[in-house]
Amino acid sequence: MSTLQIADGAVLAADMSVRSADVLADRETGRIVEVGDTARGDEILDADSGLVIPGLVNAHCHVAMTLLRGYADDKPLDAWLREDIWPTETELETDDIVAGTRLGAVELLKNGVTALGDMYFEVPESAAALAEAGLRARVGHGIVTVGKEEVTARADFETGLDVARELDGAFDGRIATALMPHSLTTAAADLLAEYVPRAREAGIPLHYHANETRDEVEPIVEERGVRPLEYADELGMLEEGDFIAHGVHTDRTEIELLAERGVGVAHCPASNMKLASGIAPVQELLDAGVTVGIGTDGAASNNDLDAFDELRDAAMVGKLKADDASAVSAPEVVRAATAGGADLLGFDSGRIEPGALADLAVIDLEAAHLTPAHDLVSHLAYAVRGSDVRHTVVDGDVIVRDREILTLDEAAVRREAERHAESLIARAESNR
Amino acid sequence: MSTLQIADGAVLAADMSVRSADVLADRETGRIVEVGDTARGDEILDADSGLVIPGLVNAHCHVAMTLLRGYADDKPLDAWLREDIWPTETELETDDIVAGTRLGAVELLKNGVTALGDMYFEVPESAAALAEAGLRARVGHGIVTVGKEEVTARADFETGLDVARELDGAFDGRIATALMPHSLTTAAADLLAEYVPRAREAGIPLHYHANETRDEVEPIVEERGVRPLEYADELGMLEEGDFIAHGVHTDRTEIELLAERGVGVAHCPASNMKLASGIAPVQELLDAGVTVGIGTDGAASNNDLDAFDELRDAAMVGKLKADDASAVSAPEVVRAATAGGADLLGFDSGRIEPGALADLAVIDLEAAHLTPAHDLVSHLAYAVRGSDVRHTVVDGDVIVRDREILTLDEAAVRREAERHAESLIARAESNR
Repeated sequence: MSTLQIADGAVLAADMSVRSADVLADRETGRIVEVGDTARGDEILDADSGLVIPGLVNAHCHVAMTLLRGYADDKPLDAWLREDIWPTETELETDDIVAGTRLGAVELLKNGVTALGDMYFEVPESAAALAEAGLRARVGHGIVTVGKEEVTARADFETGLDVARELDGAFDGRIATALMPHSLTTAAADLLAEYVPRAREAGIPLHYHANETRDEVEPIVEERGVRPLEYADELGMLEEGDFIAHGVHTDRTEIELLAERGVGVAHCPASNMKLASGIAPVQELLDAGVTVGIGTDGAASNNDLDAFDELRDAAMVGKLKADDASAVSAPEVVRAATAGGADLLGFDSGRIEPGALADLAVIDLEAAHLTPAHDLVSHLAYAVRGSDVRHTVVDGDVIVRDREILTLDEAAVRREAERHAESLIARAESNR
Repeated sequence: MSTLQIADGAVLAADMSVRSADVLADRETGRIVEVGDTARGDEILDADSGLVIPGLVNAHCHVAMTLLRGYADDKPLDAWLREDIWPTETELETDDIVAGTRLGAVELLKNGVTALGDMYFEVPESAAALAEAGLRARVGHGIVTVGKEEVTARADFETGLDVARELDGAFDGRIATALMPHSLTTAAADLLAEYVPRAREAGIPLHYHANETRDEVEPIVEERGVRPLEYADELGMLEEGDFIAHGVHTDRTEIELLAERGVGVAHCPASNMKLASGIAPVQELLDAGVTVGIGTDGAASNNDLDAFDELRDAAMVGKLKADDASAVSAPEVVRAATAGGADLLGFDSGRIEPGALADLAVIDLEAAHLTPAHDLVSHLAYAVRGSDVRHTVVDGDVIVRDREILTLDEAAVRREAERHAESLIARAESNR
């Protein structure tokens, strides 16, 4: 048995208590076998004076969009998509997406993220890049039919379904899949009605953007006389294991519907602020029993993939939205970013306990901005940043050690990404 | 002439353009003497591949509150002050404040902050700690009269006035002062009426919390029939050189009053979110011509002093408040955190140009989360974090070099702060 012992750290338990303990992981099963004082492993990972936490789960992302980080800021969602993002994305080639995905994977892993939900294109290649970098991911092809001919639209759904069928369980189980229609307003109703049942037959869950902006809600209400999530429910798009992204403009009826159906929400506070979309009613969702995870969304609307920023943002805007400083507390956001996200994505991670997947991060607490340490859960929510992550472990494998990523050559990944970003923008701009 | 040459970086100019240039600083005057290609200095600071920016200005802080970082979270301002902060602060001794101030100074300088506004107690000692650490600061004694006998209240104003008179210009001009009544509801009207004119006679500006929460606005409107800033104006508390903190609940009339009087606002977005106070109307303030700076507020309501977090928060919530993704843009927040803050505090810094004070920070751009570099101003607003600061320079003196602070022993400062925090909490809790 090949084991990894994460030694001499303080361990965050699922109940948000912290105690000194070693964590023992079995690399063959990828699972935690012991949390305690007597663990002895074949390999030791030094967590001295550090805080051992479940790896963060970035529940909603478009990883390859790192190529467009800072390319177009300070614009609302619709104009930003139509004027900048979509025209550039039409120029994307597979190599670009792989380069952007690798860059994002480096950033995610160095910031303590061990699992994510990723909606993008060229999924077989991007999923391979994520898995080879060491990440666990639920992936899907982003299906957009708006503005497309019927035959092209249908082909996009076919791609989405094929990818979800073929990649589920790939890379030793690190890759899971979902059918990922882009949103309720950008994927055609008749094709949703046709393909959603086909996904269900194959046992594939759904993930899509919903209720992100008011502009997405109003057309559905006007045209169909129901709220967007009621429309989704009519289409069979709210079943256990499904999860939506955003849910900003979600009313009481829809919150209850999510709770009844067991459908969770990937909350993306930074993207929702940056695009002036609004603030999701996170405390209401939690109170209703809806599982909430936290996502960075793509780097183009954030502009980083630091999930600790996102934790902090979630706690901060959750209080604004509820008009109550006790809302969306530190323990709640830490839980959302770990166990909550893992539950959304259907991974057996997000908790440090025997039997759970050995996906962990070790936080270096030796820093002025983390002194004194009255409350480590508060620190995780409000003061830790991604650069405080010392080690990252997935499946019991050390992926980041002492802030260095072991699975990729970071400098080469950065150069490749720069080259692809430059060429992509040049192609897109020459077409205008 | 002893000069420092910041070599081989890209320099951010006040118009938000970036060009390759060296910066030459004269240490005797503490000022920039040249920005260009021909600069030759006695000492070289390597900024290779880095971005040279004006040192950030943290316009509103209570630095020593680092001791209470994470001590009481997820509570609204009034309960947080009355139940946790004030009872603990009554136990503060001078040594505690010095220890907390040194800890905060390490954090600020390592995060690229070169100047700040600091309102706290034991100001002669805390100002010395700030200046010795290498910071430039406008400081004042936080005057609170609520719940005090007349004689004690008056003594607090006397302390505030004395401190402001005596320390102005201290430490080779690194320390400037202001009269700092805590707020319009916690400092008695009759004493304000008496002491504000005395401050004016001595040429001392004012800094105070104003319009932070609705609970601060309503009592004044009810009791006096005017808005809080109209009340401040009646008391002569809105003169050029004065600046308020927060200004969250500020109406159209008050915004115009601030613009007419030349009084600026230190915007503290994180603290305003964390205490659920609300969002200041930053785009409206900017449109009206009000000078806006950015502050972290104390670490107890943030919970760090990373001014880059604050920049990002300002851009993010500014868009929410305006319901417009183009509001409070990247260049606007970068300007607010540099030139805006310097103008608020009355320092000749915040711009990299000959004649300005040589207060600078060098950002290390060699990081996955800053790749690619389509737009460096966007990066400063949305992607750079304090840990990306490689060097910090104040008055042409290198204070942080390669992420190490040269003026203090960081490990010793952290240990001292831990010791003082522990003892302070023990004393406060034994009194309950």
